[in-house]
Amino acid sequence: MNDSPKDTYLEHATALLNRIAAEEGPAIERAAQVIADRVAEDRLIYAIGPGGHSQMGAEEVFSRAGGLACIVSFLDDGFYLGHGSARSMAIERTPGYARAILDHPEMAAGDVLLIINAYGINSATIDSAVLAHERGMTTIGVTSIANQRGLPQGHPSRHPSGQDLCDLVDIVIDTKMPLGDAVLRLDGVQEKVGPVSTMVNAFALNAILIEAVGELARRGIEPPIWRSSNSLGGDEANVAVIERYRHRIPNL
Amino acid sequence: MNDSPKDTYLEHATALLNRIAAEEGPAIERAAQVIADRVAEDRLIYAIGPGGHSQMGAEEVFSRAGGLACIVSFLDDGFYLGHGSARSMAIERTPGYARAILDHPEMAAGDVLLIINAYGINSATIDSAVLAHERGMTTIGVTSIANQRGLPQGHPSRHPSGQDLCDLVDIVIDTKMPLGDAVLRLDGVQEKVGPVSTMVNAFALNAILIEAVGELARRGIEPPIWRSSNSLGGDEANVAVIERYRHRIPNL
Repeated sequence: MNDSPKDTYLEHATALLNRIAAEEGPAIERAAQVIADRVAEDRLIYAIGPGGHSQMGAEEVFSRAGGLACIVSFLDDGFYLGHGSARSMAIERTPGYARAILDHPEMAAGDVLLIINAYGINSATIDSAVLAHERGMTTIGVTSIANQRGLPQGHPSRHPSGQDLCDLVDIVIDTKMPLGDAVLRLDGVQEKVGPVSTMVNAFALNAILIEAVGELARRGIEPPIWRSSNSLGGDEANVAVIERYRHRIPNL
Repeated sequence: MNDSPKDTYLEHATALLNRIAAEEGPAIERAAQVIADRVAEDRLIYAIGPGGHSQMGAEEVFSRAGGLACIVSFLDDGFYLGHGSARSMAIERTPGYARAILDHPEMAAGDVLLIINAYGINSATIDSAVLAHERGMTTIGVTSIANQRGLPQGHPSRHPSGQDLCDLVDIVIDTKMPLGDAVLRLDGVQEKVGPVSTMVNAFALNAILIEAVGELARRGIEPPIWRSSNSLGGDEANVAVIERYRHRIPNL
């Protein structure tokens, strides 16, 4: 009966989250296993979100209440929308750029890189996957397969190689975001509205990390987890975590 | 039957989105009306997310596929996690800081400011609401009432005045985020895991904007909306929108 736009948007959003949980379960569990393996060895986990709004995925897993503390996110001023959205788009489309930022003193073969990009086609995203493989890293892609398969070769946002992220990573978690992100068409409005990528990315990322934490607990390992600083005893609870990682994780 | 952590996380996330749609409908519609009123007059809409991860809410509504194009987000390097999470927290707790960044040549009495903060208590958040009212603006808060009511006076993350955002804004959309953000307790893990604030903030914000667009369409006004640049004809579709706003919106 109620067909207000926000209710239709709710249906789209919850349907997508349900589909991710139902269809991506095995991929999420594989991703969680490889992350748990590295955390068990006290290795850092790396994340990059090569693009304007995709970088929010790398923010989501960095220094996050209820999230793993041993994550290095390559939060980059070039991708950051606060320095300009046209600038951010031009940079994500620049071949070679990601190579300049994907570096950390501890990064080595066998380490895990989470690559979060809703579209999975731009130069910084493809370069990140290629570089990680050159270095012998294990890659996890959080991305929409429908989007990259649906976008034709020669589109200006594509890497010159025309590759799709889902073909380059070791493990892909498909976020099911429809082509173009916006899901709703309203009467009298030319463009579709209601983007979903932030919600599906956040859900998929947190699902992976939750499963990794559960797996570590099953192995008898207490994983390092942030408490919200805006909660009771938050600052105090985080002192030990900060002390453990402040010399290893930039920008903590 | 299936009690994997990610399935429990899914239940929490979808329950929260459903509750927002069911219980916050009137507030979302009021917020949409005041936004539609301003857009109809060709006024800009302003947004700020005063805090590390809360700034992602201001990113969500800025230059966003399927989102309104006439939004100015005060994306600030101090809040930005890429410049340090401890630095970001210290800055969001600094009384007076928000006054230095909340400014735009067109900002005037009657304009709308969206204030997005999951916790609703820190200095930059409270200062934003107070300053907006001094200027005669209409404020919309996207925040968790349970969190601000649950956090005691004297907590180090609170503004010196001890105020809650929900008491200061004209319209509040309650995101229902539980105290401390993380929703899951796993066996053998001391801290809770699985933050939900990014999902509930993104859902609430997009619900407001979708309803505003629908209202504008009912008034016979075609609202300015971004198409994804990573979609067919995206760059071309956005040329006219950029031309219309590039001299009015910084960092476009």
